[in-house]
Parts: sequence; structure tokens; C-alpha cells
Amino acid sequence: MQNERFLRACRREEVDCTPVWLMRQAGRYMEEYMEIRSKHPFLTMCKTPELAAEVTLQPVHRLGVDAAILFADILLPLEGMGIDLEFAQNEGPVIHNPVKSKADVNRLRLIEAEEDVGYVMEAVKLVRRELDGKVPLIGFSGAPFTLASYMVEGGGSKSYLECKKMMWEAPEAWHALMEKLAEVVVRYLKAQVRAGAQAVQVFDSWVGTLSPADYAEFVLPHSRYVMEGLKDEGVPVIHFANNASTLLELVRQAGGDVIGVDWRINLDEAWARVGYDVAVQGNLDPIALFAPPEVIEEKVRDILARAANRPGHIFNLGHGIHKDTPVNHVIALVDAVHKHSRRVG
Amino acid sequence: MQNERFLRACRREEVDCTPVWLMRQAGRYMEEYMEIRSKHPFLTMCKTPELAAEVTLQPVHRLGVDAAILFADILLPLEGMGIDLEFAQNEGPVIHNPVKSKADVNRLRLIEAEEDVGYVMEAVKLVRRELDGKVPLIGFSGAPFTLASYMVEGGGSKSYLECKKMMWEAPEAWHALMEKLAEVVVRYLKAQVRAGAQAVQVFDSWVGTLSPADYAEFVLPHSRYVMEGLKDEGVPVIHFANNASTLLELVRQAGGDVIGVDWRINLDEAWARVGYDVAVQGNLDPIALFAPPEVIEEKVRDILARAANRPGHIFNLGHGIHKDTPVNHVIALVDAVHKHSRRVG
Repeated sequence: MQNERFLRACRREEVDCTPVWLMRQAGRYMEEYMEIRSKHPFLTMCKTPELAAEVTLQPVHRLGVDAAILFADILLPLEGMGIDLEFAQNEGPVIHNPVKSKADVNRLRLIEAEEDVGYVMEAVKLVRRELDGKVPLIGFSGAPFTLASYMVEGGGSKSYLECKKMMWEAPEAWHALMEKLAEVVVRYLKAQVRAGAQAVQVFDSWVGTLSPADYAEFVLPHSRYVMEGLKDEGVPVIHFANNASTLLELVRQAGGDVIGVDWRINLDEAWARVGYDVAVQGNLDPIALFAPPEVIEEKVRDILARAANRPGHIFNLGHGIHKDTPVNHVIALVDAVHKHSRRVG
Repeated sequence: MQNERFLRACRREEVDCTPVWLMRQAGRYMEEYMEIRSKHPFLTMCKTPELAAEVTLQPVHRLGVDAAILFADILLPLEGMGIDLEFAQNEGPVIHNPVKSKADVNRLRLIEAEEDVGYVMEAVKLVRRELDGKVPLIGFSGAPFTLASYMVEGGGSKSYLECKKMMWEAPEAWHALMEKLAEVVVRYLKAQVRAGAQAVQVFDSWVGTLSPADYAEFVLPHSRYVMEGLKDEGVPVIHFANNASTLLELVRQAGGDVIGVDWRINLDEAWARVGYDVAVQGNLDPIALFAPPEVIEEKVRDILARAANRPGHIFNLGHGIHKDTPVNHVIALVDAVHKHSRRVG
């Protein structure tokens, strides 16, 4: 491996400077991506290993980030479970057979990842080959709650009304769904590791809608199952719960080698709360990339100062990069992180 | 005043049981409201004192809450500033002349509340007359940031991209806008108090999108101006910042006699963080009203236990009530709060 910074930071080892990558770094803000996207529907891109590999590599070449993250959609493994998924034009994902009852849960299949999402594993292999040790490759999955939210709501949601109703009205159905999803996530991520992923991230993008008590009862045991299931894979696991600053201690309890932190909390406070025996990842407001470069630089320095050169900080955004982000600002960000975190001596 | 619970709790005095009211309690989940709404456009309801007064009183009669809150929209005072506002069908508010520059800010007028939003003051007077001392009436306003967010974005937003860009690219324009808005909010709320409002709430509904550093620099001084400006009015001021658990200490610094708390944080932790020398209001997940009554009751008891009969807790939701909420569950909630918080002896 030519660039070990990211993996060393995951293990809380000393680094020459702070590693940086960006959630959703392979995406619409890059011309190179849009050129491919203009020729292929989104799901086709996900399911064609050559295309997925190509867009995965674009930000590595262009931005100088310290890790690649696989281009994929978090909902892909649901198809093998029996979920009828469509990406409607400009409307995000639509699930035509949402899960409404225990009977619906019972019908869901556990996936065989190499068969059901084999194209993802092919993409992982292709990317590893192309990267040739340049930077490590991160695989990823949605967390059980976030996957369940799409399945139960039938798509995105503002209120998560249907999910919460299932938790409170039919907790047995809810837990059965989460158990199946947790097992699917473990199988999916283990397969990615077998294919060559050198770290994995679990995204709990929408779990911030829950009170701490509901997270503890309805989510934590299932996220813990995922984290336990990945312990012997020999790769670092990043656990990111978005808009969940008040859940950080519980997220930590669920597990993970690295805890992702969004921008709504100061990084030093977040790290103190999760404990220094775990690495942290974050936490620039993604919209800050629209600020003038000197403001970006000031915000980078503030976050680095809060990390205080303690081993185990991976720089990232506090959520995925916005589609209209100026690429030159992203490059400036990556440079600023490296420059201002360079360890002397 | 026949029911002093709410005002006593605002002042952290002993009460016979915990007072409860609900954000957006006058609204679409009530048949009585929908009957009026079916006959009048939303803005007409806001601007017709008799209609506004009628829907303000509906939840007082139906639910047994301990306070009325004026029916109004937070954007009403913007029209007098020169903002061209429309409530598009099913799309929320649209502002046809969004604020994009310092020149746009310079063109904004400060309002004379009794003239520009006189219909609100008329509604306040009507409600006070009708209530006849049954329960107190709460007036309200959007906070400067939340009002600015609509003005700058041109409507609702997910990313608050335009607001943040203005903060970082044109801080002088941003602060000039916030200064004008803070003065408008003070004038608007003072006029409501003169008309008869016995408490006021300042809603910072969207400020949770900001990092603590950005809140401290771009919002706090202006929210503080509002709180300082209301200090001598002799009525309690409730300061509610939504999805802002990590900003609670800063919200407290800005001021307010009562700090509103959303459901993403446990109430005992929130109260410890803002300090026991201030009252708190909250914090049931509004979606919990869809749960079976026994689950609602359990959640009520948990929140009351966290408040621990300490004087100065006002029970409320952690955000506005959802439009599809079953009314009988809302009534059960109000009863459960009163029943389980009854002080003995």
C-alpha cells in the first residue's frame, strides 16, 4: 500500500498527516461523473462493474483523497430480499412493495451476497486491481435502521411515521425486520471484504429521527449485531449515524472502530463523548464547500485543532457532498487538510 | 386567571400538575379546523381575526391544554418588510423576491406592527376576550435565522445553501439582514404583548442546520437582541431551537425564560446542560402521538420522571404536531400529563 494514512488512522496509529476522504465523493458534482451519468441510468451504473469502478476511481485521481469508496447505492442488497426498487426521475428511490406487516417481513429472503449483488463484488475487485495499492478501498452498506426506513416508508421520508408506528404498534414485526436486515448487512459487507474492501462503513443516514430511548430499544441491538458480525474480518469498521449527535454514546455502544460525526457538534466534544479508545471521522458541514477558500481553510484548521493531532482522526464531511459543490473547492479542502495537519519531526 | 399552571411553570414556581400545550395545536389534525380551512385559503384565515381567533380556541375547548397559542404563520410580518409572499398549493411558502444581496437587505423596511400586522393584534384581542381568563394566551414569532432562511432561500430548504453562502461570502449583508429581522421580531412581539399575549415563544425552527461555531457567529447575537428587547415586557419568553440539541448551551446564552427542547435528547440531560435556573419545555416526539395510548403514556411518564417534579417544566412536543395525528390520542396525552404529574399533598 503506497498510502497507509487512512488505515493507520482507523487503527489509531501515528500518521504523517490527517487522512481525508469525502462521503459521496464519487458523484454528481464531478464533470467526469456526469459525463458517464448522461449516458447510463443510475441503476445501470451501479450494476455495471466497469462503470461503478470508473466513477469510484475518478475522485481518487482528481482530488488526491486518501481512500476510495465504492460507488453503489445503499438499497442494492434489498432487491435480493424481494424488494421491488425503482429510481424514479428526480424523486429518489421508490419501493413498490413496502413492508407493512409481519407477514411481509416473513416473505423477505436473506441474500447470498455473491449471487444477489455479485456485480458489487465484481466492482470491488476491478477497483482494487486499478488502484494497485495507491489508496485503500472502503466498502459500505446502509445500517439496518436506514434500510428498514426505505422498506417500511416505501421511499424517503420526513417524519418516519410508518417506521415509528411499526416499532410501537408491532414491535415483533419491527424486530424481525431488523434482524433480517442486520444479517443481510453482515453478509453483504463480509462479501465486500472477501472481494477486496480494506475497510467498510455502515451508514445510518436517517436514524437521527429517533429519541435516545427508541434508538436504544429498536436499533442498537441490531446495529450491534452488525458490528459484532464484522469483528473477525480484519478490516476497520466505520459507524456513521447522521444528525445523531445526541445518540453518539449509544452508537459507540453498538460498536465500530471509527465513529462518524456530523457537523452539528464540535469534534472535540464528540470525541470526548465517544471516548478516546475509538477513532473518529468528520466533521465539516458539506455546505461549507461552497464558502470562499479562506473560509474553508479556517474551518479545516478549527476541526484539526479540535482533533489536536490525537491519533485516530479521519477528516471527512459531516454528511454526503452536495451535488452542486465546486470541484476546485473540494481539491482545496483536501490540500488544506494535508497541509495543516502535517506532523513535524 | 383560572388556570395559572403554564405561567407559574414559566416562572419556575410550584404547580399542582405539569402544564401542557402543543406546538401547532391549532391545526389540520382537528376536524373543526379543517371545516374552516375548507372554506378559506390559509392566508385568509391568518388575516381574518375572527377566523384566527376561532381556530386558536378550538384546541383549548377540545383538548384541555393549559395554554392557547395564537394561530398565525411565522412569515406574516415579512410582508410589511416588502417581501412578496405566497402560499402555493401543497408546496409551502414561496417568496417571489428573495433577498440575495446587501442592496436587497437595504430595501427591506422595518415594520410598524400595529399597522403592518394589525390583524394579528386584533386576533390576540379577540382570543383574550373569548378566553376570559380560562387559560393564558401565547403569542409567537419566528426567530431571525428562521425568518432569514425563508427570505434568502425563497422558501423552504433542505440544505440552506443560499443562507450559508451569504454568511460566508457576504457576512456584512447577512448581519445587516439579521439586525433588521431581530428588530422586526422585537416590534412584532412587543405589539402582541400590548394586544394581550401573556407569554411569547420565539421559534428557531431551522437553525439546527448550523454548526455550533456558525450559530455562535451568525445567529446568537441577533437572537440575543430579541431576548434582550423583550426583557422588560413582563411576560415569559420561550426560546425554541429545533433539532438543535448540540446548540442548547448557546441558545441559553442568547436568552429566554424557558428553553424549548426537541425529542432527540433526554430531557434530564438537556435541562442539566441549559442549567436549572431556567425553565424547559418539551419534549415528546410528535410522531409518538401515533403510538398506541399505552405507549404514549409510558413515554409521558419517562419525560415526567426526567423532569423530576423540578419547578419549571412545561410539557410539549419536541416539534409541531403532525397533520394526521389522531385527536383522541392528543386528548389522551394531555390527560396523561396531568394525571401522572399531579403533585400530592
